[in-house]
Amino acid sequence: MTATAHNRPRAVREAPLYDPEIATPDHAERARTLAERATTGLLSTLAKQPPGHPYGSLIRLAFDGATPVFLISDLAEHTKNLRADARASLLIVEGGTEDPLASGRVTLVGRCALAGNDGGSARAAYLAQQPEAAYYADFKDFRLWRLNVLSVRYIGGFGRMSWVSAEAWAAATPDPLAASATRIIQHMNDDHASALLACCRAFSRAVAATDAVMTGIDRYGIELSVATDAGRRPVRIAFDAPLETAGAAREALRGLAHRARQVLGQRAADPV
Amino acid sequence: MTATAHNRPRAVREAPLYDPEIATPDHAERARTLAERATTGLLSTLAKQPPGHPYGSLIRLAFDGATPVFLISDLAEHTKNLRADARASLLIVEGGTEDPLASGRVTLVGRCALAGNDGGSARAAYLAQQPEAAYYADFKDFRLWRLNVLSVRYIGGFGRMSWVSAEAWAAATPDPLAASATRIIQHMNDDHASALLACCRAFSRAVAATDAVMTGIDRYGIELSVATDAGRRPVRIAFDAPLETAGAAREALRGLAHRARQVLGQRAADPV
Repeated sequence: MTATAHNRPRAVREAPLYDPEIATPDHAERARTLAERATTGLLSTLAKQPPGHPYGSLIRLAFDGATPVFLISDLAEHTKNLRADARASLLIVEGGTEDPLASGRVTLVGRCALAGNDGGSARAAYLAQQPEAAYYADFKDFRLWRLNVLSVRYIGGFGRMSWVSAEAWAAATPDPLAASATRIIQHMNDDHASALLACCRAFSRAVAATDAVMTGIDRYGIELSVATDAGRRPVRIAFDAPLETAGAAREALRGLAHRARQVLGQRAADPV
Repeated sequence: MTATAHNRPRAVREAPLYDPEIATPDHAERARTLAERATTGLLSTLAKQPPGHPYGSLIRLAFDGATPVFLISDLAEHTKNLRADARASLLIVEGGTEDPLASGRVTLVGRCALAGNDGGSARAAYLAQQPEAAYYADFKDFRLWRLNVLSVRYIGGFGRMSWVSAEAWAAATPDPLAASATRIIQHMNDDHASALLACCRAFSRAVAATDAVMTGIDRYGIELSVATDAGRRPVRIAFDAPLETAGAAREALRGLAHRARQVLGQRAADPV
């Protein structure tokens, strides 16, 4: 039995109600999306005393593109550690769920370096994410550091985990819908339940579904939970093309609903 | 300027309204209290690849006395790391505040070892804290580990940080009032505001206070926020003797209020 099997809910092993090959965020994108919204992380460094011992501490952070940046005091333990050995990792845990082990997390493995306090992009990114740091950012013993990412361990919750290369991490972008997803999902479930149900019946094997609830949205598509004889099952439906902004979601969802009704109309007129 | 000075609110540097030598939890006790209530922690280990690199991961945990115990899969990265090098640290962050850096945290530095799955105290402690683990605790590749604590870094928030020895950590006990504190504070502020004010006037330099709000309670005493001409200020008042159970709080608080009214009565009868 593998760790993956331990974590995979039984239902997923049954035949899915949708084509599992349809576009879906890859692990690099999921990791970037999760990390982008974090404001704190666990920094693991190598202690000076006892020498080489792993040492964990809590830091505030921000992302300058794909690179985590953080402002720390020269007097703090982790800073003394980094000055002696730059190797570090940064664990970021997705917020907002009661059980942290059911949520996503990512460990960025890399080497730290001073990011410079010269008004560059690292400083701007940090102060945009951590505005209250402005009052001590110019203290003489506070310096901005960056973690140059060498590899990434992504654990997305049940059954989703892998190593992501530094290249894939850097090339991926956070999902543009991440900040709007909760609001969109709420709106669709409140006001467009029949459109969601039509999408399920038209674009998945749940052709006789009587209830569908939207559970997720990302640049590539939407996820739903649909009532079946065998209990609730997941369905994923892809957009025609990846969305580049949150603002494009409305049009894409309207397009899906329109096509779904066309498909269902055709199916009714021409039953197999 | 020191890191401690950075973190210390300005008011604390003014003369306190109470005797700063009165009994108060020490850092070992505060760290044990904070850790005791945790259910998850951040484990820092030394990676196998790249060798010796610090690696952070999230674990569920429990305490078997002063010793953290956790149930992990042989297949997980951190377990492979620990089998190659047992050195580790475990960061525990106090929950319940919006800003994690304003809350307490403790890093336990030590060496990990298998705790045995033989029905001993570690297993009982773990399953008591993590009851849902019962369903995978007997999987062949899951094993219970312990962290043998060598030293402890405690950061209690503003201006409170120090190293705590393994001996002090093991000898300290979690505050017996920790689980009841919120409820007691609410009750005292709702129903016994005049008693709290009397305590402030009788036992602190805030002899003319007109408003006192209870903000904390521990085995050694209570903390209040009192309105003064210079704004709200902290006051700490000690119990006669440390409490050994949460159940002793009611009697101790009643005793404090009674003595306060005696002092105030005497003061009124015999003004200086």
